[in-house]
Amino acid sequence: MGENEKIKSKYTEADFAKLAERIYELDKKVYTATGSNLGRLFSDDKQSSIEEIMETIAESHKSHASRSIVALIGNMARSIKKKDYATWKSIMIEYDSIIKQLQDMSVGFGGVEILDYEAAKLSDVSKTVETEEKHHRIICINRTYGSAGTEIGFGLADKLKCNFYDAEIFQEVINNLGHGRNVNDIKKSTDIGYKYDRKRSSIYYEKNSDQLKYLLTNLNRYHGLPLKDAIFFKISEILCDNAKDRDFVVMGRCADAILTNNHIPHISIFITAPEDERIKRMMEINGTDYKTAKKHLRKVDKFRAKYYKYYTSKDWYEANQYDFCINSSRYGIEGTIDFIAEIVNNGCK
Amino acid sequence: MGENEKIKSKYTEADFAKLAERIYELDKKVYTATGSNLGRLFSDDKQSSIEEIMETIAESHKSHASRSIVALIGNMARSIKKKDYATWKSIMIEYDSIIKQLQDMSVGFGGVEILDYEAAKLSDVSKTVETEEKHHRIICINRTYGSAGTEIGFGLADKLKCNFYDAEIFQEVINNLGHGRNVNDIKKSTDIGYKYDRKRSSIYYEKNSDQLKYLLTNLNRYHGLPLKDAIFFKISEILCDNAKDRDFVVMGRCADAILTNNHIPHISIFITAPEDERIKRMMEINGTDYKTAKKHLRKVDKFRAKYYKYYTSKDWYEANQYDFCINSSRYGIEGTIDFIAEIVNNGCK
Repeated sequence: MGENEKIKSKYTEADFAKLAERIYELDKKVYTATGSNLGRLFSDDKQSSIEEIMETIAESHKSHASRSIVALIGNMARSIKKKDYATWKSIMIEYDSIIKQLQDMSVGFGGVEILDYEAAKLSDVSKTVETEEKHHRIICINRTYGSAGTEIGFGLADKLKCNFYDAEIFQEVINNLGHGRNVNDIKKSTDIGYKYDRKRSSIYYEKNSDQLKYLLTNLNRYHGLPLKDAIFFKISEILCDNAKDRDFVVMGRCADAILTNNHIPHISIFITAPEDERIKRMMEINGTDYKTAKKHLRKVDKFRAKYYKYYTSKDWYEANQYDFCINSSRYGIEGTIDFIAEIVNNGCK
Repeated sequence: MGENEKIKSKYTEADFAKLAERIYELDKKVYTATGSNLGRLFSDDKQSSIEEIMETIAESHKSHASRSIVALIGNMARSIKKKDYATWKSIMIEYDSIIKQLQDMSVGFGGVEILDYEAAKLSDVSKTVETEEKHHRIICINRTYGSAGTEIGFGLADKLKCNFYDAEIFQEVINNLGHGRNVNDIKKSTDIGYKYDRKRSSIYYEKNSDQLKYLLTNLNRYHGLPLKDAIFFKISEILCDNAKDRDFVVMGRCADAILTNNHIPHISIFITAPEDERIKRMMEINGTDYKTAKKHLRKVDKFRAKYYKYYTSKDWYEANQYDFCINSSRYGIEGTIDFIAEIVNNGCK
C-alpha cells in the first residue's frame, strides 16, 4: 500500500471537504483584502470549486497542483497592504494552518522524506542526523581538472590548520611497502615498479619491472591481489588509521567512498567549474593552445571518473555522490575556500 | 606567453635556489624538532636536494609536487610538541612565508584564478565580486525528479517569506494570453490548446486543436514563433518583470539562464539525490513498483534536460551550471531548507 492509500484510509471524505472549504474561504478573504485587480483563484460557484479543490488535494500525483493553489493564494496574501494588520495577520495564520494540514493530508506535499538516514549519519555537514561518536573533521574533495580544486583543498587545510593529503598518501604507501622515507628514495622507487605521474596525480604500475617479484613479496598482506588493488587497499588502511587521530583534507583517491564503507563520518565535496573556464585557466598556466588544453583536461577527468567507478561503482561526475558541490568559477580560489570554511565552521552545518 | 614563462622571466635562477634552500632548511628544522620517527623529506646531500626542489618549483606542471612537498613538511610540523613554543612558532612563521613565496613564484600554486568575473557578479551567493545595483533576492532551483526539490523550494519560500513560482508562472502566462483568471478557466483552456501535465509539471502544446487559430491570433506579439517558444519568451518576460519588484523562489523553467541573460543577480541551486533514493521515495508516494517508478523518473529527468538544453544550450545535469548543488538525501527536506536558508541568510554568502 502506497503512502497515498494510507492517508486516504486515515481521513474521511468529510475531512478533505472541510480543508477544501477552508482553502476556498481563504482565497475569497484574500481577494476581498487585496481589493486589487489580481483576481481570485476560484469562482463564485462554491460547490464546484470545493469539489475541484478536494479532487486536487486527495490525489498524490496532484500534490504539485495543490502546492500551486496555496502558493498562489500565499503570494497574493503577501501583497495585502499591512495597514489592516488584523486582517493580514488572521489570513497568514489561516494560511500557515492550511499548509500544515495539507502536509498531513497530501502525501506529495512534503509527506515522504528523501532523507537517507545512514548516509546522513555519516555526513559531517548535515545536522539532520547527529553523528554519535566523537570523530575528527575529515574533508574529502573530488574535483574536475582545472577547477583549482587542489589549490582550494590546500588553502582550506591551511585555513583550518589541519593536514593535507594528496601525494603524501602515496608517499606513505611507499613507506609502508618498505621503500624508505625520502624524496630521493621515492624517485628510486618510481624507477623500479611504480610511476607517480605528477601531471595526472595518480599512481600506476609500470609493467616489465625487474623488481616485480621483490615488490610482490612485500605485499604479502595483499597476496593474490593485482598491484593497483593492493595499493588502493593500502591507501584505504592509511586513510582510516589517520581518521582516528587527526583532522585532514584529502584530495580524490575515493576517500569519500572508503570512509563511508568504514562508517567514518566525513564531509564530501565536489569542486568544478564550466569546462571553458577550466580550459582557459589551464591555457594560461601552461601556455598551451585551446585544443591541447581541452584534450588533456578531458583525458584527466576521464581517468579520474574511471578510477572512481572501478573502486566505488559510482559516477564521479554526479552531484548526487557528494554532500554538496561548488562551482569555483563563481567564487574564485579564496572565495571558495571561505565558502567551504564557513559552511564547515559556522552553523551552516 | 604562458604565466609560467612570465614568472620565469620575473625571477632569476638565484631566486629559485634561495627558496629551495629555505625549504630544505625548514625540512631539516622540522625533523630536528619532531625528534620522531616520522623521518625527513630530504637527505643529507644538501646540494642535490636543493637541485631537486628547484626543479620542482620552477616547473608549473610540477606545482602539484611542490604543493605535496610543503604539505608534507607542514603536516609534520603540526605534530611538533608545543612545549617548545618558540621553535614551533618560528617554524610556522617560516612555513607561512614559504607558502606565500611559492604562490608568487609557482604559477600552478594558486597563481591563476578560476574566477569568472561576469558570472560571479550575477551570483548573489558569492561575495567575491559585489553585485553593484540594488536588487531583490531571487533563488532559482533546478531539481531532479523525486529529490523533493519542489517541496524544498516551497518550504524555502515559506521560510524566507517570499513568493513561490512554479505552476503559477504558467497561470500568469495563461492570464497574459487572455484566458481568464481562475482555475475553472484554466481547466477550460487546458481543454482547448494547452495541456498542463501536472505529473511532468510542464506545458506542452496539444496538436489538432480547433482553437489553434484563436490562440495564435492572441499571440500577435510573438508572431511567427512556434507556440512553445512564444510561451517561453512570455515566461522570460514575466520573470524579469517580477525580479524588479519582489523576492521569490522559482522552480525550473530555465530561470537561472533567463536571469543571467538579462543581467539580473540571482542564486542558482541544483537539488538532487542518488537515483535509488529518489526511486524509493516515488514508489512510496505512488505505491508503484521499482521498475515503473524508475522508468517514469528517467523520463521526467530526460524531459527537463532536453528543455534546458533547447533554451540554454547547457547541460541541466552538470554541477558546473549552478552556484552550488545539494544532495537532499543527506539533509532531508527540512534540513535542506535550513541549509540553503543559512547559506542565503547568514554570512555564508
